[in-house]
Amino acid sequence: MSKQDVHLTRGGGCCTPISVAALDEAEAGVGAAVFKALSDPIRLRLMSIIASAGAEVCVCDITPHFNVSGPTISHHLRVLREAGLVDCERRGTWVYYWPVPDRLRWISALLSVPEDVVLAH
Amino acid sequence: MSKQDVHLTRGGGCCTPISVAALDEAEAGVGAAVFKALSDPIRLRLMSIIASAGAEVCVCDITPHFNVSGPTISHHLRVLREAGLVDCERRGTWVYYWPVPDRLRWISALLSVPEDVVLAH
Repeated sequence: MSKQDVHLTRGGGCCTPISVAALDEAEAGVGAAVFKALSDPIRLRLMSIIASAGAEVCVCDITPHFNVSGPTISHHLRVLREAGLVDCERRGTWVYYWPVPDRLRWISALLSVPEDVVLAH
Repeated sequence: MSKQDVHLTRGGGCCTPISVAALDEAEAGVGAAVFKALSDPIRLRLMSIIASAGAEVCVCDITPHFNVSGPTISHHLRVLREAGLVDCERRGTWVYYWPVPDRLRWISALLSVPEDVVLAH
């Protein structure tokens, strides 16, 4: 079910920032899909809770943070998973989530502005 | 018209990564709005063209890269501007765009995974 196999590298290397080279249509499609997963406030908060936990997080410990239903949380978690930002495993009654560091680093690097890059203005 | 005055800092400093601390609702709302601006493939390509140009870019040099109408491009550029990612100035017939480095650095830092942060798995 994971989409982590979506091609994420650009040109000869990983993560060429957009401040260094413009994206082609295919690259923009992949990047936009990941940003779309982060474009909802609930999903972005979910992502931050999972990313900052320092350990796997049980969905049972996530839902109390939100005033929305369990199925709604599950839907948002699925979107994050399909974007390759988190992964999960069911153990008994509960599902446990953890972040995918490479995906976070890739999307962060895509937006980075290297020190030696001079932007207009 | 710019929304660059939206509060972007977190806690005691700028850009605490989500891998370090979870976002509250207000922070997630601001972040999600910026990611939403980048969640469209055309807008993400536009952003990359403007960010990587190394100089101001005339809208007249942007539209030939896309198979969509001028008004559509203008709409997408307005979304990027309202998200604080680009700014622009009209000079005579044309509008010129440039990236907002602080906004790019902020959103990149938000997603970064510092070397000393240990993520689950």
